[in-house]
Amino acid sequence: MSDTAKLLARRAKLLGAKAPLFYDAPLHIVRGEGMWLYDSDGRRYLDAYNNVPLVGHCHPEVVEALARQAGTLNIHTRYLHETILDYGERLIAKFDPSLSMILFVCTGSEANDQALRIARCHTGKQGIICTNLTYHGNTAAVDAVSPLFYGVNAPPHADVRTIPYPDSFRAPQGLAGDALCDYYITALESAIADLEASGVGFAGLLLCSIFANEGLPDVPPGFMQRAVDVVHRAGGLFISDEVQAGFGRTGHMWGHEAMGVLPDIVTLGKPMGNGHPLAAVVARADLVEEFRERVFYFNTFGGNPVSCAVGAKVLDILERDRLQDNARVVGQHLRRGLRALAERHDIIGDIRGQGLWVGVELVLDRHGKQPATEQAHRAINLMKDRGVLMGRIGEFDNVLKMRPPLPIQTEHADLLLGALDDVLAAL
Amino acid sequence: MSDTAKLLARRAKLLGAKAPLFYDAPLHIVRGEGMWLYDSDGRRYLDAYNNVPLVGHCHPEVVEALARQAGTLNIHTRYLHETILDYGERLIAKFDPSLSMILFVCTGSEANDQALRIARCHTGKQGIICTNLTYHGNTAAVDAVSPLFYGVNAPPHADVRTIPYPDSFRAPQGLAGDALCDYYITALESAIADLEASGVGFAGLLLCSIFANEGLPDVPPGFMQRAVDVVHRAGGLFISDEVQAGFGRTGHMWGHEAMGVLPDIVTLGKPMGNGHPLAAVVARADLVEEFRERVFYFNTFGGNPVSCAVGAKVLDILERDRLQDNARVVGQHLRRGLRALAERHDIIGDIRGQGLWVGVELVLDRHGKQPATEQAHRAINLMKDRGVLMGRIGEFDNVLKMRPPLPIQTEHADLLLGALDDVLAAL
Repeated sequence: MSDTAKLLARRAKLLGAKAPLFYDAPLHIVRGEGMWLYDSDGRRYLDAYNNVPLVGHCHPEVVEALARQAGTLNIHTRYLHETILDYGERLIAKFDPSLSMILFVCTGSEANDQALRIARCHTGKQGIICTNLTYHGNTAAVDAVSPLFYGVNAPPHADVRTIPYPDSFRAPQGLAGDALCDYYITALESAIADLEASGVGFAGLLLCSIFANEGLPDVPPGFMQRAVDVVHRAGGLFISDEVQAGFGRTGHMWGHEAMGVLPDIVTLGKPMGNGHPLAAVVARADLVEEFRERVFYFNTFGGNPVSCAVGAKVLDILERDRLQDNARVVGQHLRRGLRALAERHDIIGDIRGQGLWVGVELVLDRHGKQPATEQAHRAINLMKDRGVLMGRIGEFDNVLKMRPPLPIQTEHADLLLGALDDVLAAL
Repeated sequence: MSDTAKLLARRAKLLGAKAPLFYDAPLHIVRGEGMWLYDSDGRRYLDAYNNVPLVGHCHPEVVEALARQAGTLNIHTRYLHETILDYGERLIAKFDPSLSMILFVCTGSEANDQALRIARCHTGKQGIICTNLTYHGNTAAVDAVSPLFYGVNAPPHADVRTIPYPDSFRAPQGLAGDALCDYYITALESAIADLEASGVGFAGLLLCSIFANEGLPDVPPGFMQRAVDVVHRAGGLFISDEVQAGFGRTGHMWGHEAMGVLPDIVTLGKPMGNGHPLAAVVARADLVEEFRERVFYFNTFGGNPVSCAVGAKVLDILERDRLQDNARVVGQHLRRGLRALAERHDIIGDIRGQGLWVGVELVLDRHGKQPATEQAHRAINLMKDRGVLMGRIGEFDNVLKMRPPLPIQTEHADLLLGALDDVLAAL
């Protein structure tokens, strides 16, 4: 039995046969450094997939901050310590002044779970609206607003309504412009009305601010602000899930800034600790005060000094190395290169995203836009064989998904583009 | 304004006025080492409260393992890596062979949330039974089974029933022996029948295996096995919450071993990573396979190589330093000392717990057992002033709660006993 086969057998026995794995021939990764992952044969891969190692894999300064604080003090937040205040205040300063309080947790799922609790506590209503193709995490409450991965035969969730994700590329009924926007806003209004009519009531709208799991669609202009206005007029809250979009990747610090709207509640996670389990809810002070008044909330690990020291070091590096600017600059370079590829490869139907969030939709024909799902599957496996890691996403799993660590340089992007040129030619 | 006042003001502004804090005059902690915590004035405190730093605060070998792996590779589990297999297999080997699969998460709340999902997935029913004074965590689903901290005016949870926690000290209606056991079993049977009659159906019984939040009651002999039998006959699952009880503190590796029963699902957390956010669900293979078959489950941080390296090092130290034995030996020494104190201090009404789980119930009179709640409040504050940290718990908040890091030595226990002798005399 090969080493990989042995690992797969042990894994199936310990974690279950269906524990998710990437690639037809899974990768056995043993080391990470900056933009690179290394497998057990010493082969290196340019990481254009992982958004969690925001400042690069195993960044030595992050490791040093982690070790220093772990060797000094690691304790919960029912004693006073300054790390949580220094970090939290610094983070809050990066938001609109109305978003002035923070609840520390450990994962994006926990952040979204608490955000739903806060919204339901404030409105006294239970109904949450999300898109029909989203994923917000894995707790029971958050799974209910994650239709992308609803289980087989999952019971309907009485307190959830879904709306079609906003999409200009595959617009319904050939709609465009204001009419397309109207279509999606009408769906939102109907969902609110349905929740109110059912007696569940409307608590809030939860959206990933880059619609990452929906395939990074180009959102019809004006949709986001109109949606937020509709939500507020109906007495609900707008929750912006920044677990994937946040921390500079879009070229803006937060995805909701890129979208030009102001949320009532924001959730943070994945890249926040560069891989260390660190996440948070940032919200209006009145919402947090009300929640804490009515609910006992405590999280043993949330906001511990080690997590906060790591989070602060990630901000240090983000700011010092101007990684948000780099996301914009290298993102543009990558997109320019992709547009050049599109001139040679008809399979590229659309190029989307912002900054270092890049989606490339593959189609069988540009006119009919028939999804090239199987080709996308082969493409990411072939890219891996050529030493570049990316994923795929979207309604038809035909959108190549790229979201490299932010220190990516143009030469890394060129390497990716060269490999993709070859792979698309070979499909 | 004093430094503490400044920190308190910053904290209220950032985290909310009701963010929980210990002690009438909160402690500003800046450093931890082994059994000790140090405040900003350089004063040291014997930590007899914190169960999370299982092998001692800032254990240098744990810090070294954390830093080494964080500098090598930190990645999710959709690539193959060996750390998760090595650690997971080693951990599973410490359970009954029927509990052979593991789901890694980051917090005890996440572990309990997934345990509820697994039980509901398997039974196809929603109803969970818990005690009337328990706390299992803070996600929406887990909050519903945490009546200790139900929010003000919390709506009733249609899918939860509570039963009185089993208690020999304040036994209802003066019952004892089999009659007392019958009383609690009847309550469980009624709750199951009520769930079934309501149409919700019975999915499982969730109990902390040491009843930590209930005040470490002496459980009537026979109750646990009879309860598990009742649960199984009704088609439900028994979930043992080991987030507090696990990892050797009781003198047994797991609290359910101390109780002499075999769960279907076990949840782990707090001490698992000595403060690093690491937690897990361990369960029967058929339950995990079924869950993974029907539900897409993935946790970005759960089971990452850094968390697993930390967990493995904690096991190394636990085994090498025979800390489980130490919990039994020093626990006995501490209990012997407490019994000696009880001869001089009538306020001690009961001494409970196992190993390094110690509860001392304070009463105004030993006959009527009127709770000495205010005295318990003063006692923990006075103990802090004398340099020993402990908490209080129980239905009347009158049970002194002690659960020191496991490397505690008899001289530390003697220091605690000496301080407690003085404090009880001064109440």
